[in-house]
Amino acid sequence: MNTNLANSAAVTADKYPSRISDKPSVMDRVDPVVYSTWKAGSPLTNEQFEFYEKNGYLFLDEFFSVDEAEEWRAELKKLQQHYEQREAEHVIREPGGTEVRSIFAVHEHNERFKELSANKRLNAVIQELLGSQTYIHQSRINFKPGFTGKEFYWHSDFETWHVEDGMPSMRALSCSIALEDNFHYNGPLMVIPGSHKKFVSCVGQTPDDHFKQSLRRQEYGVPDQESLAKFAQEGGIDTIVGGIGSIVLFDCNIMHGSNSNITPLPRSNVFLVYNSVENALKEPYSGQKPRPDYIAARE
Amino acid sequence: MNTNLANSAAVTADKYPSRISDKPSVMDRVDPVVYSTWKAGSPLTNEQFEFYEKNGYLFLDEFFSVDEAEEWRAELKKLQQHYEQREAEHVIREPGGTEVRSIFAVHEHNERFKELSANKRLNAVIQELLGSQTYIHQSRINFKPGFTGKEFYWHSDFETWHVEDGMPSMRALSCSIALEDNFHYNGPLMVIPGSHKKFVSCVGQTPDDHFKQSLRRQEYGVPDQESLAKFAQEGGIDTIVGGIGSIVLFDCNIMHGSNSNITPLPRSNVFLVYNSVENALKEPYSGQKPRPDYIAARE
Repeated sequence: MNTNLANSAAVTADKYPSRISDKPSVMDRVDPVVYSTWKAGSPLTNEQFEFYEKNGYLFLDEFFSVDEAEEWRAELKKLQQHYEQREAEHVIREPGGTEVRSIFAVHEHNERFKELSANKRLNAVIQELLGSQTYIHQSRINFKPGFTGKEFYWHSDFETWHVEDGMPSMRALSCSIALEDNFHYNGPLMVIPGSHKKFVSCVGQTPDDHFKQSLRRQEYGVPDQESLAKFAQEGGIDTIVGGIGSIVLFDCNIMHGSNSNITPLPRSNVFLVYNSVENALKEPYSGQKPRPDYIAARE
Repeated sequence: MNTNLANSAAVTADKYPSRISDKPSVMDRVDPVVYSTWKAGSPLTNEQFEFYEKNGYLFLDEFFSVDEAEEWRAELKKLQQHYEQREAEHVIREPGGTEVRSIFAVHEHNERFKELSANKRLNAVIQELLGSQTYIHQSRINFKPGFTGKEFYWHSDFETWHVEDGMPSMRALSCSIALEDNFHYNGPLMVIPGSHKKFVSCVGQTPDDHFKQSLRRQEYGVPDQESLAKFAQEGGIDTIVGGIGSIVLFDCNIMHGSNSNITPLPRSNVFLVYNSVENALKEPYSGQKPRPDYIAARE
């Protein structure tokens, strides 16, 4: 089963090998979570710093105003309509359907979302946590529609970014900005606190060019049930609920996912991934060719 | 599109016509919700009576002890294993899979669940709400597994029981007994309070013998999105969370459903439907042949 071992050995210093064995395994994180020391005048409180380090995420209610968020939602609806009938490689549709599920690279293709990704107040927080300048590794807007919103199974983003994109270290984080109110019942983000301090090496290999499918339904880089059950037993499950304009920052390696949404209430969001400039992408650790720029920026 | 109209006209006094038009419609309930008047000495408080009448459901925490519920869970696991490799017509599997999803008619086939369905304290509450003696219209145990628990889309049970089983009036209720702890995040029951006072006439017709599919995935008797959105806007959405041994009683016509469950925590339950003896089944209002006895008892 280990036909990728030759590839894997060829890539030196792979701190987080995955998809090379037919058995899952769990190892400790060898990178820091927070890359700076808290000091007075920081845009976060010391408690927020410590919460993020320990739990791997931070929820900031009302970070943006309702007015700001509603403008972004209007822009998102415009884009959704625009792509309803138009094909584009950075537009992903629902599994088994034609509805627009995600639009990638909005920080490049759209002025409003470019502005948002460069927001000073937001960047100050992120640069402090990552201890350096950052750049956008990936951006997208997600439509989680009412009635038919599909689930996202548990995953560590870093596992994919490492194996498929060549991100060397855990020095990136995601920011999700709520463009609708999030309730317990409309498929909100769930995280397993503390899971960011372990790395689950997943089984199986990645077929070439599978990314178009994987953005619709995950089949590779899926953590095993035993590890997930153990993490949840130790850390519990936190559900991120909050109003429009709230944001959640979460570590690149935290286990997260969401259940389906049969309620009439949609749950759209903007999703921005910030990577440290000191953590620039290398060749994918799978030995395969890199995914396109609209999924993983290489600059 | 209205080829069933002849059938429908032939069945006199159909108070709740459904699946006969190609447009959905909403009508008022013409039956009472509670069929008795509260008096001192009732097994429910006056507030509980009024809550059930207004909202269409009633949650009773710790109605059964943890010990009792754990015995039933052990029995359920035995049955699940028993049917893992055995086919039986009253055993329903997951859509697209082979895992056991539901086992029907457990009040007939299993001594422990027969006892449970006849529980005196439970029956006293139910007979008071329905104002008469009752019998079990349907019973089942549901396995909502961890990681892969599927969603149940919104529906009114009565719509199906009326059209497919010939239940004339809204004088039945369901009792769901939690055999695991229910959290916000493991796909708990969701209800739309107040929706039991309206009847949604659904579009489409029912093909013959479709019940085997419909128990796995609902395709007929599906309420329209516009009606659901309006109900949820008016009544909100209540999520039923509570520990093992808790029960929820809900009116046969309340809109309910549940999201998927990707968490490691299963959410199994026993589901008992009590119908008033004064509401015995007639011929199905669809004009089709009745569903089998293990789905809808005719005694």
